[in-house]
Amino acid sequence: MRHTISILVENKFGVLARVAGMFSGRGFNIHTLNVGPTLDPSTSRMTMVVQGDDKVLDQVNKQLEKLVDVIDVHDFHGEEFVDRELVLLRVRATSKTRPDVQPGTLAIEVTGSGGKIRKFLDLMGRFGIVDLTRTGKVALPRLNDKPEKK
Amino acid sequence: MRHTISILVENKFGVLARVAGMFSGRGFNIHTLNVGPTLDPSTSRMTMVVQGDDKVLDQVNKQLEKLVDVIDVHDFHGEEFVDRELVLLRVRATSKTRPDVQPGTLAIEVTGSGGKIRKFLDLMGRFGIVDLTRTGKVALPRLNDKPEKK
Repeated sequence: MRHTISILVENKFGVLARVAGMFSGRGFNIHTLNVGPTLDPSTSRMTMVVQGDDKVLDQVNKQLEKLVDVIDVHDFHGEEFVDRELVLLRVRATSKTRPDVQPGTLAIEVTGSGGKIRKFLDLMGRFGIVDLTRTGKVALPRLNDKPEKK
Repeated sequence: MRHTISILVENKFGVLARVAGMFSGRGFNIHTLNVGPTLDPSTSRMTMVVQGDDKVLDQVNKQLEKLVDVIDVHDFHGEEFVDRELVLLRVRATSKTRPDVQPGTLAIEVTGSGGKIRKFLDLMGRFGIVDLTRTGKVALPRLNDKPEKK
């Protein structure tokens, strides 16, 4: 089963390689990964989508928490969360498909959850995708955004 | 100087840890990193923003190309390219700042180039950012999208 895991780490040399190594060393397939800055310049947040045995993953998460440069590990499994990814792609745009502008190709930016992106790429496949690059998934917990008490 | 590097790799265990290790082992600061799927299920694309000495980086790129699971290394340095990142954030939304809906917090998705994102986060800081997660940068070469010959 796929798990989306958010890991807050200190910005130190080698943390990324060490965390990635803990998953790959246990045979986990890292489907997507993001590492980006947070509001605190001394930390980064890694968001990983990994696939593998649930019990082993629990162990890996616990071992990760023990690493000195790992501040927090959060597995979104079983929770409601908002997730998004971003894709940049270039599709063929011939005079037949785009009689108005007629460029040779067209660059497109699209964001959404995994399912939406998959459908969009299926659609774009008809035009011919020339180039494509995409982020991994990022996620935030979905809160019950209840009105504050007055 | 910051370099944006796109690396096409085989989907094999340990490639990510090995590539990340080549940068961190030489003291490079990996500012952001994405690993995502491509149209070919046997490959993934890594996009890294790294900072360090230009000459050493040239050497690292050449060494990366020699790794058996690395298919292609492209440094966008000195080229025109389109780049985007995505941020999910949750800001405080009190009855004072959002008199219409009055949720306790509000989740926002924003995409753009680095500069645009920075300005947006500065602005949102006034409301109070409760939670934030962001992808690294992804990039596509900027082509001269000339009309095709008829």
